[in-house]
Amino acid sequence: MRVLGIDPGLTRCGLGVVEGSIGRPLGLVDVGVVRTPSAWSVPERLVFIEKGIEARLDEHAPDAVAIERIFARSDVSTIMGTAQAAGIAMVCAARRGLPVALHTPSEVKAAVSGNGRADKAQVGAMVTRILRLDAMPKPADAADALALAITHIWRGGSQARIEAALAAAGRKAR
Amino acid sequence: MRVLGIDPGLTRCGLGVVEGSIGRPLGLVDVGVVRTPSAWSVPERLVFIEKGIEARLDEHAPDAVAIERIFARSDVSTIMGTAQAAGIAMVCAARRGLPVALHTPSEVKAAVSGNGRADKAQVGAMVTRILRLDAMPKPADAADALALAITHIWRGGSQARIEAALAAAGRKAR
Repeated sequence: MRVLGIDPGLTRCGLGVVEGSIGRPLGLVDVGVVRTPSAWSVPERLVFIEKGIEARLDEHAPDAVAIERIFARSDVSTIMGTAQAAGIAMVCAARRGLPVALHTPSEVKAAVSGNGRADKAQVGAMVTRILRLDAMPKPADAADALALAITHIWRGGSQARIEAALAAAGRKAR
Repeated sequence: MRVLGIDPGLTRCGLGVVEGSIGRPLGLVDVGVVRTPSAWSVPERLVFIEKGIEARLDEHAPDAVAIERIFARSDVSTIMGTAQAAGIAMVCAARRGLPVALHTPSEVKAAVSGNGRADKAQVGAMVTRILRLDAMPKPADAADALALAITHIWRGGSQARIEAALAAAGRKAR
């Protein structure tokens, strides 16, 4: 499966596309960051972010979109713009009928590094290793977007296996 | 001028269109609420809200869009969805090149009732009187959307007069 991971933000919105499946090596398809100048109005910035996401969806036709889950307790000065960028990302995906998954930062850190409290450098290093890249993707928003996509592929698979096991157990019980 | 006022929200998004200019009676063009069931996913709800806003923009071709300004200090349980709905509203307007203005609740209350701490009932009553309606628009989200549009027409006018006066003063000073 091919997944677009999105680390939402008004100033920098990380976008990373990863392809692969559980138990097989994952591959980098694309990675980048949409940046918008703080001098622009918020509506203008959101429209530019929407165009950036649409361009990746058009180009790479992912099977799913994974977006970082935002919490209201995060930094108050940036939370509104981050929430709005995440909302735009959700709409871009849902308009095309693509499944949207939200993963928390600690879920992503745990999935790629085994440690839900890993720092940015550890996440970046693990993304580099998992995707067998020559260098760590920069900025951190780009690495985080790839980590989200990796998390989605790995967690989606385990979730599917759990559901299959439960369904099988249900059939035996009947 | 014709203004679409939007009181953003995931559960109820108020949409009100008002036409008129400073010093002349304002007229109601349209008012309604886009509702989305809480059982839907957030991406599905945002797409539905986007469609509702787009339909009003198509039908009424407003000159500007006025949206309630959201603060991060508001109720944490609903703030994320409200921020996201506001972000979608901004994008719908900005994609068409329409000016977007954000007005705070106290600016709206002060504009329509003369009291920045007016309650919902007072705002609703003033909207009813200003637009010469037979009954108060319901629910409150619908009345708030109309109040936003009224505020925009009235404040926009005073803002334009202030800017014109400053420009004239600047010409004299040179």
